[in-house]
Amino acid sequence: MSIRIGIYGYGNLGRGVEAAVRQNKDTQLAAVFTRRDPAGVKIATDGVEVVSADKIEQYKDKIDVLIICGGSATDLPVQTPKLAKMFNVIDSFDTHANIPTHFKNVDAAAKEGGNIGIISVGWDPGMFSLARLYSNCILTDGSDYTFWGKGVSQGHSDAVRRIEGVADARQYTVPIQDALDAVRSGKNPELTTREKHTRVCYVVAKEGADKAKIEQDIKTMPNYFADYDTTVNFITAEEMKRDHSGLPHGGFVIRSGKTGLNGEHNHIIEYSLKLDSNPEFTSCVLVAFARAAFRLSQEGVSGCKTVFDIPPAYLSAMPHEEIISHLL
Amino acid sequence: MSIRIGIYGYGNLGRGVEAAVRQNKDTQLAAVFTRRDPAGVKIATDGVEVVSADKIEQYKDKIDVLIICGGSATDLPVQTPKLAKMFNVIDSFDTHANIPTHFKNVDAAAKEGGNIGIISVGWDPGMFSLARLYSNCILTDGSDYTFWGKGVSQGHSDAVRRIEGVADARQYTVPIQDALDAVRSGKNPELTTREKHTRVCYVVAKEGADKAKIEQDIKTMPNYFADYDTTVNFITAEEMKRDHSGLPHGGFVIRSGKTGLNGEHNHIIEYSLKLDSNPEFTSCVLVAFARAAFRLSQEGVSGCKTVFDIPPAYLSAMPHEEIISHLL
Repeated sequence: MSIRIGIYGYGNLGRGVEAAVRQNKDTQLAAVFTRRDPAGVKIATDGVEVVSADKIEQYKDKIDVLIICGGSATDLPVQTPKLAKMFNVIDSFDTHANIPTHFKNVDAAAKEGGNIGIISVGWDPGMFSLARLYSNCILTDGSDYTFWGKGVSQGHSDAVRRIEGVADARQYTVPIQDALDAVRSGKNPELTTREKHTRVCYVVAKEGADKAKIEQDIKTMPNYFADYDTTVNFITAEEMKRDHSGLPHGGFVIRSGKTGLNGEHNHIIEYSLKLDSNPEFTSCVLVAFARAAFRLSQEGVSGCKTVFDIPPAYLSAMPHEEIISHLL
Repeated sequence: MSIRIGIYGYGNLGRGVEAAVRQNKDTQLAAVFTRRDPAGVKIATDGVEVVSADKIEQYKDKIDVLIICGGSATDLPVQTPKLAKMFNVIDSFDTHANIPTHFKNVDAAAKEGGNIGIISVGWDPGMFSLARLYSNCILTDGSDYTFWGKGVSQGHSDAVRRIEGVADARQYTVPIQDALDAVRSGKNPELTTREKHTRVCYVVAKEGADKAKIEQDIKTMPNYFADYDTTVNFITAEEMKRDHSGLPHGGFVIRSGKTGLNGEHNHIIEYSLKLDSNPEFTSCVLVAFARAAFRLSQEGVSGCKTVFDIPPAYLSAMPHEEIISHLL
């Protein structure tokens, strides 16, 4: 019996989940739910219904796990608890500061419905969180470093697009090699925001716009750019389309720590990702955890879980004996 | 209440566990068991007993988790099942091909005793296994690569020491940079043994020994060296002591995989370790999993487990709310 996956929200992430389901033979796409007019939403999988989000209750017995693909910080705090009352759910809630509150809300709702809700699944939070947890448990005396990129930041790209005179923009976050090297050397450096990352913007200016002013507006924007060394490149709309259509991302989680009776030995644990497509990779993580949600639910477990609470074997489609033989 | 740890076997690994226990405030060293004469074993912790391995049964109620620090392929298959009848146990069994059999034996013994036994804990098997499992679950269409080093291989060092005319030897396994670069580029190369690693030996020859013959004997040794490009350096006993007393190690686990409806996007997941002390790092992993064994046992769980079966949160001394707030 394959795991029936529902997709709630059909943007970049929803399309990524659709592709990921095809790569996981023990899962199948059951339905796609949208808040738009379903007639206007064309999906890539033949024979699968696109349904209005309003009608989701009717699908209670047709979906094993619902993957909530709302990307926004305002949608998920409402959607995930609401849907966890009816379905096993997975989301990629990524507002780090609000995770404890979200956990409590989803936990109450999921327990009420007798379902599993796994929150904050993806790569950060998600796989990067796991890298941080494991390495902190091993090297108790040490320092954590997280670097992001090289990759497209949607939030920063949007911020640039809101500047007067900007027709289109793409912002890349880039880790600084010297900072990475210093961390890897075991020196435990204290790094400022400016020392860890640079920001590189590609901007299509509107005709007649004041480019010097745009550049100045970007570089001095509080929170987004003022604390970084930022490079602004003006390009044409054609160049933007040709060279910057993708959504690559990635990053590095490094823990540097000491062991021994006198802390005489240093160790570096590093986890890194280099992703051609941020939403497709996130989707693959979501589907693996959907498998775990399904299994936990079959065992009668309910409530909110995070990546920290799932035994890794639950993510795999392979039988336990095979995992032990081939991957241990 | 702190977790009372017993150490069974006091070599490099046992000493590492002793140091790791000091770094984990919720654990304490309860006793060290040795097959040697306890009077001749001096440990670094005041007020802790060194006990003959024969008397271990008397410590049944004084130890929460016993960490079995026998390094050898012949000791653990006997020791771990035997001791799992009496104690919660952890070992670092590393003969990959025999893990399924060891699992079954420990599972039966641990269940009989109502205990937990976690086997094959360390970095390979251990953390590298986790890296392989997680990345395989995420990128289902891809290839795995494991590189070891730069680090001292005890087995290969021992093999060189057995050659006629060799007074002392140290062997380093070194990953080949070109191979690493090819893997990281996403090219999915097929790599031969020779293309992945080189072997570098430092040898102290006995007086009057035939160095040319030693070098020839090393380079042509089947299984150990014949399939690799090997470099042999002759050094003095003083240089050996000064430059090669440590036990550094490490390595890289890389998965390269494709996503998208047409496999159009490539992704690289990389986990790497750079360790000044192989036994001390392994010990830190053992102590973290000892915490998990203790908790599972408190919950009434029994039987054999691997790193794949433990929810990551069980490894942490932090309360769940704190893990979620700070590490997710």
